Amino acid sequence: MANLPKEIIELSDAFSSLPNVGPKLSARIALYLAVSAKDLAKKLSFSLEEVVNNISKCNICGNVTNEDICSICADDKRDKSIVLVIEDSLDLINIESAKEYKGVYHVLGGVISPINGIGPDDINMTSLIKRVEDPMVKEVILGLNPNLEGDSTCLYLKDQIDGVRDDISVTRLAKGIPVGGDLEYLSSQTIIDSMKSRINF
Amino acid sequence: MANLPKEIIELSDAFSSLPNVGPKLSARIALYLAVSAKDLAKKLSFSLEEVVNNISKCNICGNVTNEDICSICADDKRDKSIVLVIEDSLDLINIESAKEYKGVYHVLGGVISPINGIGPDDINMTSLIKRVEDPMVKEVILGLNPNLEGDSTCLYLKDQIDGVRDDISVTRLAKGIPVGGDLEYLSSQTIIDSMKSRINF
Repeated sequence: MANLPKEIIELSDAFSSLPNVGPKLSARIALYLAVSAKDLAKKLSFSLEEVVNNISKCNICGNVTNEDICSICADDKRDKSIVLVIEDSLDLINIESAKEYKGVYHVLGGVISPINGIGPDDINMTSLIKRVEDPMVKEVILGLNPNLEGDSTCLYLKDQIDGVRDDISVTRLAKGIPVGGDLEYLSSQTIIDSMKSRINF
Repeated sequence: MANLPKEIIELSDAFSSLPNVGPKLSARIALYLAVSAKDLAKKLSFSLEEVVNNISKCNICGNVTNEDICSICADDKRDKSIVLVIEDSLDLINIESAKEYKGVYHVLGGVISPINGIGPDDINMTSLIKRVEDPMVKEVILGLNPNLEGDSTCLYLKDQIDGVRDDISVTRLAKGIPVGGDLEYLSSQTIIDSMKSRINF
């Protein structure tokens, strides 16, 4: 990289700070933009400015929005009595693309992870407990990923919710065999989960 | 993506136009920048502006530069009698990191590829032939990748150079077994090349 102009090195360094972009790919992208795609570079720069200036978190659920309240919380047709708790807005996109869920969301922005120094105060949890205090909310679905951190965050949230409401249903998304999964390759825990939660056929 | 603010969708679209960045990764990057890394987004936007405004191609060799002439062409210590022809500036970086070559470069910005509609006029070739007319140039090394397009571009360049100079040496980088290569897995063509070019031990 020593023989490249400093502008390209700085751009490459900035790209390499992005998730899943290594130093080889970032150098490739920086050179591509500098040599073959200056129009795309301009467009990227403009889009980044727009995001920096206009995007914030929804005052209710923590989802990304360019208003005070996100399009889902502002939608009268969504069922405000069910709140699905998720880790980030990418989960929301994928759940929405299934076109099954009609309730609203609460985006934590992370999960409790002592090993990474993330405690209950570092995620968007206080506002969830506030929301749950409203008797309009009848069910909280915990939609966190089934791993160590997701599981312990679920336990913590359940405890907190029970502390403010005793007439609310707290559920968790079912664990089992994913569509297209192959029993030959599934983890033991997935098989145990799918056995325990088996349903009448 | 339908439930994301338009600013994030536009940023994600722009990222997905980059080489080796698919739609899942681009959405992830756009959300990451919007939610957790606005400082990085600002830095990226600034770096992109800098590249758009300050980077151009070297008037002599076609390498990227923030001056009229790139740092290698401007370096008095480089041997101007040897010109190494390469496809793009990324090749240059890797060759420079080997700290072996002391001559200068000529960056074509591509190779002749009829299937992709890239002809001799679409690459930086005319200026190479002009450079070669200068009797100071004693050797042209063809440093293009050994594949169909690289090979045919080499043949074409050799023909063009022979047309303007009969007292110049045109060479090509040696083909053979790469360091760390394993005879068990090498392609037949690599084995044939390494046999034909074998040297006394």
